[in-house]
Amino acid sequence: MEAPAKGLLVALLLGVALLVSAPLRAQPDGSSAAIRAELASLLRAQRDAWNRGDLDSFMQPYWRSDSLRFVGKSGVTYGYDSLVARYRRTYGQGAEMGQLEFTLLHTDVLSPDAALMVGRWQLQHRGKALGGHFTLLWRRLDRRWRIVLDHTS
Amino acid sequence: MEAPAKGLLVALLLGVALLVSAPLRAQPDGSSAAIRAELASLLRAQRDAWNRGDLDSFMQPYWRSDSLRFVGKSGVTYGYDSLVARYRRTYGQGAEMGQLEFTLLHTDVLSPDAALMVGRWQLQHRGKALGGHFTLLWRRLDRRWRIVLDHTS
Repeated sequence: MEAPAKGLLVALLLGVALLVSAPLRAQPDGSSAAIRAELASLLRAQRDAWNRGDLDSFMQPYWRSDSLRFVGKSGVTYGYDSLVARYRRTYGQGAEMGQLEFTLLHTDVLSPDAALMVGRWQLQHRGKALGGHFTLLWRRLDRRWRIVLDHTS
Repeated sequence: MEAPAKGLLVALLLGVALLVSAPLRAQPDGSSAAIRAELASLLRAQRDAWNRGDLDSFMQPYWRSDSLRFVGKSGVTYGYDSLVARYRRTYGQGAEMGQLEFTLLHTDVLSPDAALMVGRWQLQHRGKALGGHFTLLWRRLDRRWRIVLDHTS
């Protein structure tokens, strides 16, 4: 093979290699970033719902299932309905619920349908400053991201 | 086609269908069960190590990385070395460490290399009964299961 033809072949192979490898490298990062952005936006929507006293909207990302798990001070609460009741009992309703702030620390995307989120929460509630940390397990179920486990302390 | 031949064909197709579908159905369950069993055994080994005052062995499944995260009462502790120091500071060493028991509640296998575990811990320590819950994120790194995040409350 002559030198120019060889150079052309090398350039061609390099081009093909780049075309093939680019989506492979870009996609996992791109989709992880997209998942992170989507989950962060769901968390902001939760905070906003809480701060206007709208518990129903706050609960929206939680899995509507008896298998939902909430690990809190008093142990494990199972099921969506029990968690709603727990929030009502502990924080009241409407303006009583107080003002909530979340600080997102980490989101580990574990697979295209699972992610773990760690953050801080701060709540001004009946004149008291409460707060702590949360770990949320998100699963993508029926094309929607749902919190299936919430460990809050 | 005559009836016996037809019956034979149906039986044959059914056999092939079973052969093809069985591993598809069995494998995810089988490997999830195997992962659950392996992680449960790592947890038992941790408890045994603690109860003989062997903090080094207790720490073995934790990811030896500055990115290890421990979410506890005082916030997030980052890094393996900081976690060792935290355990020493809080619980002492050797027999001082007390007697630990774990009750495993759930292990969600999220992918072939990620699992989330929830359980209770109880510790008899310097005459006090301590306890609470933990959520562990396990990742399979270099063919070994490691705790990369521990939320204990």
